[in-house]
Amino acid sequence: MTDQNRMRAFVFDGSLRVVDNYPVPELRPGWARIHIQTAGICKTDLELVKGYMGFKGVLGHELIGVVDACDQKEWIGKKVVGEINAACGHCEWCRKGLGRHCPARTTLGIVSHDGCMADYCILPVSNLIEIPADVSDDRAVFTEPLSAACEIIEQLTLTGSERAVVLGDGRLGILCAWALATVISDITLAGHHPAKLQIAKWRHIQTVTDPAGIREGADIVVDATGSASGVMEAMRLCRPRGTIVLKTTIAERGDINLAPVVVNEITIIGSRCGQFRDGIKMLRDYPAMPLTRLITDRYPIGEAVSAFACATRPDAIKVLLQINALPEFSRRVI
Amino acid sequence: MTDQNRMRAFVFDGSLRVVDNYPVPELRPGWARIHIQTAGICKTDLELVKGYMGFKGVLGHELIGVVDACDQKEWIGKKVVGEINAACGHCEWCRKGLGRHCPARTTLGIVSHDGCMADYCILPVSNLIEIPADVSDDRAVFTEPLSAACEIIEQLTLTGSERAVVLGDGRLGILCAWALATVISDITLAGHHPAKLQIAKWRHIQTVTDPAGIREGADIVVDATGSASGVMEAMRLCRPRGTIVLKTTIAERGDINLAPVVVNEITIIGSRCGQFRDGIKMLRDYPAMPLTRLITDRYPIGEAVSAFACATRPDAIKVLLQINALPEFSRRVI
Repeated sequence: MTDQNRMRAFVFDGSLRVVDNYPVPELRPGWARIHIQTAGICKTDLELVKGYMGFKGVLGHELIGVVDACDQKEWIGKKVVGEINAACGHCEWCRKGLGRHCPARTTLGIVSHDGCMADYCILPVSNLIEIPADVSDDRAVFTEPLSAACEIIEQLTLTGSERAVVLGDGRLGILCAWALATVISDITLAGHHPAKLQIAKWRHIQTVTDPAGIREGADIVVDATGSASGVMEAMRLCRPRGTIVLKTTIAERGDINLAPVVVNEITIIGSRCGQFRDGIKMLRDYPAMPLTRLITDRYPIGEAVSAFACATRPDAIKVLLQINALPEFSRRVI
Repeated sequence: MTDQNRMRAFVFDGSLRVVDNYPVPELRPGWARIHIQTAGICKTDLELVKGYMGFKGVLGHELIGVVDACDQKEWIGKKVVGEINAACGHCEWCRKGLGRHCPARTTLGIVSHDGCMADYCILPVSNLIEIPADVSDDRAVFTEPLSAACEIIEQLTLTGSERAVVLGDGRLGILCAWALATVISDITLAGHHPAKLQIAKWRHIQTVTDPAGIREGADIVVDATGSASGVMEAMRLCRPRGTIVLKTTIAERGDINLAPVVVNEITIIGSRCGQFRDGIKMLRDYPAMPLTRLITDRYPIGEAVSAFACATRPDAIKVLLQINALPEFSRRVI
């Protein structure tokens, strides 16, 4: 970078490309500028480049980086992760601590806010959480999706004796199974990818490639397939008065018959982002949770288009963009 | 009836007809035979005759009648209403008091159990509730649907300060609005029938013919439209972290996009039958609840086909079949 006001960025504006002259975002009072080390590619990113939310700008909302400018000087130099919703701070939702539902919110790399697949991004200081020294970078990069998985535990009242089924062996499905496995022991994860299911085995989690073999009457069914058929399957497997957690956004309308929800008095809970403090706590409390198994590959930002192509491969779980080198930088290919 | 083992019955077996030589149901130990006075026609009945559930047999599940045979003699001569699900009494659900979810249950006039649009039907004694002397027959006939409406109050935790929207001005929509109106004051009922909305006005209930005019952000939205578009409208009106109650079975699949449920972390609660003791309690506690306004017309059982035709009219709310004459028998035509 010759101009300190310009940076490298991975931009979507109908087409996808890496540019090296994107304006560095301007710092605002109460916000921090973060020098990005690593960004994760999420399924939402793959949806955005298909037109979801009509997003245009710098992609990326999973990050680790170091604060390099901020009016609260104590933050400078700290390695952080950041919550993705920038709330107004004043409305009814923000006052209740539910800024992630603030109607005026912007969302990093998703809604009206340039993302973190760039040398820099900005976030409100209140969104930042310092990465504890005992959490490695390769684990910390999972804070956002792991927090989303933890949200299930916050929303449900679990006794530990429930039987749970998770549908979908993508990254979020696996993390939901792992988060549930910290509380309950009877968990079945169903997916179509034997290699991913092998990676997903942890604690008592059972895996199946065909949900037709799962016994009906589960107390909790988490749909992380993102498909209408997943929702229908969840209704089939859930017991009367049981709970279905919808964990993935279904961008397209689906042919869905909700009659079983009424007949069996099922509760469906929509579950989206989680709180990073929960994700960080889980990272620290469960050092044996095998998060780094989920890293499929890493690419430098200059190869971001290839990284996205890799992330769409059926065997891909988590593909990272290495934006600025980490000391422990390594490249692993499955 | 010349043969005491034969009775009049309104039968569906692909076509609809009244017969006068249907076998009187055989009494079983622990069951009661009820001499039917009045049966209500429900929207479910209209679905059944279109093929829903593949039902064949005597229709009808809303009744009042007098017990005329029972091995527990104290029941004989009592005027009763009856819960419609006949549970096995032994399984996990039955032991929890949730016999209405017993997987082996039969359902009066709906699943493997001849219904009440006949001179007699049988039900387990444990399903019967005596109609209190201070509840008129014309109010008691609403016990089943009113209990279904009360189920909402059992499933939600209401503080009284919520804002609720009920979609659908059919019988169940109106009863849900009335049941909610006993607990909360800010209720809007939306429907397409000005005459029904006029009938629905009670307490503070506001009515609108166009849900587009309802302010978004409702705490609770009850869908009693039975349509996929009703579910979509409910998602639009419900606040983040709010609750949608699905109160009507949607027999056909619909083109439904559940993404807002995830993004706004909405809870959807399927709500079906209620407990008759709750319905009876509400009948007694709220004598001013104007239930008899909902009676559109009455027909003798011989004119049951005409009664069903009447029940399908857009202005119909509740059509009754008068099977055996009541002392206060009267015919009212709107």
